[in-house]
Amino acid sequence: MNDIPTYDDTNIFAKILRGEIPCHKVYENDDFIAFMDVMPQASGHTLVVPKAPSRNLLDADSETLQKLMPFARRIARAVVKAFDADGVTLMQFNEPAGGQTVFHLHMHVIPRNDGVPLMRHEGGMEKTEVLMANAEKIRTALKEAS
Amino acid sequence: MNDIPTYDDTNIFAKILRGEIPCHKVYENDDFIAFMDVMPQASGHTLVVPKAPSRNLLDADSETLQKLMPFARRIARAVVKAFDADGVTLMQFNEPAGGQTVFHLHMHVIPRNDGVPLMRHEGGMEKTEVLMANAEKIRTALKEAS
Repeated sequence: MNDIPTYDDTNIFAKILRGEIPCHKVYENDDFIAFMDVMPQASGHTLVVPKAPSRNLLDADSETLQKLMPFARRIARAVVKAFDADGVTLMQFNEPAGGQTVFHLHMHVIPRNDGVPLMRHEGGMEKTEVLMANAEKIRTALKEAS
Repeated sequence: MNDIPTYDDTNIFAKILRGEIPCHKVYENDDFIAFMDVMPQASGHTLVVPKAPSRNLLDADSETLQKLMPFARRIARAVVKAFDADGVTLMQFNEPAGGQTVFHLHMHVIPRNDGVPLMRHEGGMEKTEVLMANAEKIRTALKEAS
């Protein structure tokens, strides 16, 4: 791979960050937003998205990266609680070969239960009412933790 | 999930950190060690392991987590360069349901090439001479980057 392409702010997460399209938000602070993946690989599949623009890990700024895992842990603990999960899987994809499909840095936080394999990410859109209910479960878990 | 089990320092990564068993090391600093996964899912599959003891993300200390992603980026850039990769996949597993098999916090950094799916993690041990050569490639890439 040569230099990675420059950041393109027409990606869907940039549009969500600008409020141009909606999301099922679970939490937001100055640096990050967390919202439901609309094609979840398990119930409660949440995305952690830094507000700072970067294509992926390879071109991200250090300040954002320093804050990413403490924030992801907070979300991970909340999804585990909200979905009574037995574990949690984090995935972070870079470039198409690495599994990336939206070119704004993000991390997948997926609650897991014993014996339940991940669904395919391309398995289809989850129903809006399910996503709304799941986001509310996580928001409640976050409130109880703080 | 109730409270996660306490850290058990008999795990294989703790033994590697204590020097009781060998590894194919690519880099080490005060906070982390990076070494080859002996059951790689792609050539160059590297593990990033904090020296601080924690079972996984859920019980890790904030200082370690703040340093984890900047360190992982450094290793990610090196494996991309070393293996002329088209992308890189990071995975971080928590508890058996989340995919975790060694109970010391770690992150998988896997160079990826277009059209090459990940191998199964349980696909068997890589040959020692291959792991040695791959570690050397990454060490060289790290030296060139610094």
